[in-house]
Amino acid sequence: MITVGFIGLGHMGHPMANNLLKAGYTLQVYDVLPQLTQALCDRGATLAPSIVAIAKEADVIITSVQTSEQVHDICMGEDGLFTHAQPDLLYIDCSSIDIKMSVLLHDQAKKFGIAMLDAPVSGGVAGATAAILTFMVGGSDIDFERGRPILETMGKKIVHAGPGGHGQAAKICNNLLLGISMIGVGEAFTLAEKLGLDQKKFFEISSNSSGQCWSMTNYCPVPDIVENVPANHHYQPGFMAKMMLKDLRLANHAAETVDAVIPLGTVAMELYELYVNQGFGEIDFSGIINLIAGKD
Amino acid sequence: MITVGFIGLGHMGHPMANNLLKAGYTLQVYDVLPQLTQALCDRGATLAPSIVAIAKEADVIITSVQTSEQVHDICMGEDGLFTHAQPDLLYIDCSSIDIKMSVLLHDQAKKFGIAMLDAPVSGGVAGATAAILTFMVGGSDIDFERGRPILETMGKKIVHAGPGGHGQAAKICNNLLLGISMIGVGEAFTLAEKLGLDQKKFFEISSNSSGQCWSMTNYCPVPDIVENVPANHHYQPGFMAKMMLKDLRLANHAAETVDAVIPLGTVAMELYELYVNQGFGEIDFSGIINLIAGKD
Amino acid sequence: MITVGFIGLGHMGHPMANNLLKAGYTLQVYDVLPQLTQALCDRGATLAPSIVAIAKEADVIITSVQTSEQVHDICMGEDGLFTHAQPDLLYIDCSSIDIKMSVLLHDQAKKFGIAMLDAPVSGGVAGATAAILTFMVGGSDIDFERGRPILETMGKKIVHAGPGGHGQAAKICNNLLLGISMIGVGEAFTLAEKLGLDQKKFFEISSNSSGQCWSMTNYCPVPDIVENVPANHHYQPGFMAKMMLKDLRLANHAAETVDAVIPLGTVAMELYELYVNQGFGEIDFSGIINLIAGKD
Amino acid sequence: MITVGFIGLGHMGHPMANNLLKAGYTLQVYDVLPQLTQALCDRGATLAPSIVAIAKEADVIITSVQTSEQVHDICMGEDGLFTHAQPDLLYIDCSSIDIKMSVLLHDQAKKFGIAMLDAPVSGGVAGATAAILTFMVGGSDIDFERGRPILETMGKKIVHAGPGGHGQAAKICNNLLLGISMIGVGEAFTLAEKLGLDQKKFFEISSNSSGQCWSMTNYCPVPDIVENVPANHHYQPGFMAKMMLKDLRLANHAAETVDAVIPLGTVAMELYELYVNQGFGEIDFSGIINLIAGKD
Repeated sequence: MITVGFIGLGHMGHPMANNLLKAGYTLQVYDVLPQLTQALCDRGATLAPSIVAIAKEADVIITSVQTSEQVHDICMGEDGLFTHAQPDLLYIDCSSIDIKMSVLLHDQAKKFGIAMLDAPVSGGVAGATAAILTFMVGGSDIDFERGRPILETMGKKIVHAGPGGHGQAAKICNNLLLGISMIGVGEAFTLAEKLGLDQKKFFEISSNSSGQCWSMTNYCPVPDIVENVPANHHYQPGFMAKMMLKDLRLANHAAETVDAVIPLGTVAMELYELYVNQGFGEIDFSGIINLIAGKD
Repeated sequence: MITVGFIGLGHMGHPMANNLLKAGYTLQVYDVLPQLTQALCDRGATLAPSIVAIAKEADVIITSVQTSEQVHDICMGEDGLFTHAQPDLLYIDCSSIDIKMSVLLHDQAKKFGIAMLDAPVSGGVAGATAAILTFMVGGSDIDFERGRPILETMGKKIVHAGPGGHGQAAKICNNLLLGISMIGVGEAFTLAEKLGLDQKKFFEISSNSSGQCWSMTNYCPVPDIVENVPANHHYQPGFMAKMMLKDLRLANHAAETVDAVIPLGTVAMELYELYVNQGFGEIDFSGIINLIAGKD
Repeated sequence: MITVGFIGLGHMGHPMANNLLKAGYTLQVYDVLPQLTQALCDRGATLAPSIVAIAKEADVIITSVQTSEQVHDICMGEDGLFTHAQPDLLYIDCSSIDIKMSVLLHDQAKKFGIAMLDAPVSGGVAGATAAILTFMVGGSDIDFERGRPILETMGKKIVHAGPGGHGQAAKICNNLLLGISMIGVGEAFTLAEKLGLDQKKFFEISSNSSGQCWSMTNYCPVPDIVENVPANHHYQPGFMAKMMLKDLRLANHAAETVDAVIPLGTVAMELYELYVNQGFGEIDFSGIINLIAGKD
Repeated sequence: MITVGFIGLGHMGHPMANNLLKAGYTLQVYDVLPQLTQALCDRGATLAPSIVAIAKEADVIITSVQTSEQVHDICMGEDGLFTHAQPDLLYIDCSSIDIKMSVLLHDQAKKFGIAMLDAPVSGGVAGATAAILTFMVGGSDIDFERGRPILETMGKKIVHAGPGGHGQAAKICNNLLLGISMIGVGEAFTLAEKLGLDQKKFFEISSNSSGQCWSMTNYCPVPDIVENVPANHHYQPGFMAKMMLKDLRLANHAAETVDAVIPLGTVAMELYELYVNQGFGEIDFSGIINLIAGKD
């Protein structure tokens, strides 16, 4: 069995790595906070002492971290992956990062003879745990086919969005729309409530009508209308408001590079910024309805 | 069979009235533009010479007109419905109008002993023709049950939203969300295209992910992705941009009366205003993607 | 000396009426809260028992109330001004109201043979007290000249904006810009502070540069930069946030009637709505900087 | 007399350099488009063959270019200023660039022992020609005093905003407010016109009232109200819409780095993006009123 290195064992990375372990892969793990790797090592993973060490042993390396800068440093830093990688490494970045950075890393990987996929996910912690994530993948056809079986141990839907960077692009455009529609749902349900409509009745009507959207029917921000959503549990994430803010900023960066107009997207970004600044960054992103409704 | 009076035989009213005729109702029709009634009279409807005449003969009267003021004048004008209605009239207003006006008319109807339902529709001209409209109905339980069989000859889904005015409220909140999500889809697909994503590929990804919404999957504003939508036919309506603008204004009026915040809703309203002012008011509302994309 | 009737003795009306008294006018006063008239009666005004009573005695009547509906009821109610007015009454409405309503009242006044001016003010309580208000006046040339000496006892700048309703139109367009620029100043100073700029230094730079505006140089929302502004006194009004919200809504109504696009205006309206809903309606409108800055 | 090197002889750089020449400085000039230097060489400037050449001879070097990347490459590129500079060089960057980049360059300059000022300008081509620019300067007190006499030959107001990067910060915050208030003026005057107000009358009222701002009184976007503004000459720049868009993007970048909320700023950015995408990027930024008004 091939050896997989996994860097970044946070909320998402941990359950993803765990599914690789369950599938029988030899797993090397690394995180700047080594304590995050403990539970995985207890189940059979090996703690790598450094990024260089992981680079020297793994056939496939996956990163799942927070920022463009972190991915850049892991790959291109002095003691980074790219200069120490094994011949024929497949590198898969599952972080959500700036498209420009992702394309730059694809270019660098090519120079080093490294196969690379950008493969950001949707589905949240619950999806990661249940191995039903969606992966939006950018890279060549060959590399995509090579990465697919590994991704399938962690997700249910593995989509090839296009060449390098297109995984990030698809993720960002999707989440732009998600952020807008979540606030839209918040506005519609708040207005409905203030007008005296029963919210379950309004859900029944709108979810069967032209207002229907995933934010409403699969992730309803009003408590106790849809099952198993953060709204039912005091907006415990789920997908944190600060992460939605990050994705809307990435969309805004992307829009700038190609001169795209995203008026609702930027207003959504500002509303999430306001919400995060009011201290709700670690609340689920569906909690934005409370900013709209003027509730705590 | 009871006699139904139908006032307002425009794009929506005509196919709705036609379905009543098919169902066997005795139909009296009236429009300020009498020529709009010709085709129905050819099929058996009777042209009423005035609103008063219709009021004196019909057991049920339906209005389907454009503005709050028109409905007000039809009902409450000197030669209006309410003062000349038969005892026990059921009046059904299928127009989309201001909630405050609808509630005022319910109050007046009660004073005159008239049963009233506000029953705005969704589904467009196509839905009206195929008798598959959704009716969002406000009024008492008894009146709702009385109106239901008549509405069922014109629609597929007849939902009782609550007391008088709640049909309008549900419609307006739904269309607020529709306007927002249509622009959101326009922004996401335009950004995707500019980033080099294949639009069918992005549709495949996002329609199966958290960005999914009715505006995308049932009414896609990008041509040739979803079947039978206005985008495929040069944005011939469908549902005109100026009608969406009207609904967003109604949402804004409603928000004002209850101190609701609708930041994306008002930006959407302004974008539709800009689009309509640029001469595209009679284009389908999904054409707003062309404003976003900077295309003609 | 002519008799002036004054209806509405609130924060603005009281000091305005007081200046008429100082100028020697015979003053009759009326308010739905009679206690508001006490201090003026102590100084020589007469308390009128009703609107009808004031209508029967006054040569000039001034209203200074909050809403379009109040002005309508005072003028057109069953026991209203217009049906009981003296021949040749000059009626001056100093309230800020809906343009449509103001035009309607001008039309009605004409039918009753009453001369009317709409004359909303700017300058706030301080300006009213010091008799340095600006009056933006709508009405005929003759009526304007007739009203001018009375307005000059209460204000410093009396501008004839045009025919009936144009006083309101000028006020609303000006305050639209005021609301936008106050938030703009809030954004610029908050960003400057977060970037580490000294705020007095930034004021010195921007007030002498292309960012200069009245909101900054005469009403700075940052404390202790400009003298005698609400920001220096915990944002005690001044001009309440809820009154700015009202004016932005009036601007929005006006825009709707003429198909004007006011994208920054509507976002400003929503931000004030958010701020008022958070409990700050009676705080000075410059306090909006605290919403932007995420401060309490 | 000291030797000044000037890099970037575009619309702004050319008249600035010309004023240095008039003041008697020995001037070396460089531009990637050598033809831009011709007129200056005719008057006594020397064309430098390369950046390295200029670095080796000049005591003071000034850059006036378009983008952060260009400044970075001029300073830090392989054949860049910093590695080839004379001991004790004073480097002044008059470009408007990203704050982060400016701070990074200050840091690098320090490592090379180079004194640096960031000194973006306001005042446009007219101000540059007349030597009445405002310079907003970031850097140490000593360096500021050293640069001041040189800047005074090109401008009238030389303000020390703070340490390195604070010149850029002040410029960006000011122009954020400028962009917002220009659109605000556009909305107010368009609404006023549609409401039937005479625009000169409205200018007279608002410019003396709380809506007053530099965009209105010094740069009125309505033609023929204020003298010598681009609006009077078919919106020939002046300050191009695409440059305002660039500054609003810089403000947005700055806001992101410090978690500031700029809701009107981002809507203004999107409106300029829309306007530029419609083909008006090289029109004066006051032309945005035509987007608002729906005029060509």
